[in-house]
Amino acid sequence: MSVELDQEAFSNLSYGLYVLSSHDEDSLNGQIVNSVIQVTYDPIRVAVTVNKKNLTHRYITKSRAFAISVLDHSTPISFFELFGFRSGRDVDKLSKVRFKRGITGCPVVEENALSAMEALVFKEVDLGTHTIFIGNAAASEIFREGEPLSYQYYRDDMNGDTSPTAPNFSPVD
Amino acid sequence: MSVELDQEAFSNLSYGLYVLSSHDEDSLNGQIVNSVIQVTYDPIRVAVTVNKKNLTHRYITKSRAFAISVLDHSTPISFFELFGFRSGRDVDKLSKVRFKRGITGCPVVEENALSAMEALVFKEVDLGTHTIFIGNAAASEIFREGEPLSYQYYRDDMNGDTSPTAPNFSPVD
Repeated sequence: MSVELDQEAFSNLSYGLYVLSSHDEDSLNGQIVNSVIQVTYDPIRVAVTVNKKNLTHRYITKSRAFAISVLDHSTPISFFELFGFRSGRDVDKLSKVRFKRGITGCPVVEENALSAMEALVFKEVDLGTHTIFIGNAAASEIFREGEPLSYQYYRDDMNGDTSPTAPNFSPVD
Repeated sequence: MSVELDQEAFSNLSYGLYVLSSHDEDSLNGQIVNSVIQVTYDPIRVAVTVNKKNLTHRYITKSRAFAISVLDHSTPISFFELFGFRSGRDVDKLSKVRFKRGITGCPVVEENALSAMEALVFKEVDLGTHTIFIGNAAASEIFREGEPLSYQYYRDDMNGDTSPTAPNFSPVD
């Protein structure tokens, strides 16, 4: 193994693409994330990694809750332009898509979503630039059948960019 | 959102498939995992979730290091029968595949792998049944170009089973 880290080796890790959303009372926001995983099944817990600079990060630390919508394979690139590359400080993203308030108070994005889940923060792990939020699943719902969008398809076939705040951003790309 | 949790919603989360390996001095072991993610890029850190019952879990807590090999799309089902559904307590899995010892001392599985990385444990998060190990990347290498195997392809096209120790095991499947 080379002691030089080859970023390309890490780009072989597989991910999906999701909207992560949260709220601070009636202020709502969402962003695109790739690093959602289920970490236990008894009880069901999910983990998501978020950059501390992001508004959604601040809302999760306030509300102690988050929602995740699993994006459909057919999600258009315009959806990523809205949710992935603009800050909720500059634009009211939720005003532009179909969503509902979930039982945790989080906005649950339904547009382009196959399913969604809500979670209450159980633990958070400080990683310097990012935080891993681990949540106890509080609700979940399937909207329709379909194929989930993979990060690989977004990157390789849709020519989608990766946000500089993403945990797997590669400065040398 | 239904307060009843629909496990099907969580099965829409996307994963890859990997060999996670570690050692306790000259005792070596590896297992199949799906929940590997990069969590920061400065420095590069990866997280993996492992069931406490697994021998590899014990080895990681001893050596404070782990290796991850990214499996190729063409990995045969027999490889999963060896690495995914047998305990290293009963069989010397590493004696049956091509690997090398990495700079962390971990066995780095090369067989059916596109790339690999080694990491030194930086934090661990206790989740009851499972632990999330977060590691600082110590080395990485690309073996060859190819398409990484996705968990979805393994499950849906190869009819692969999920181990009852996996973090996304579904008792109702």
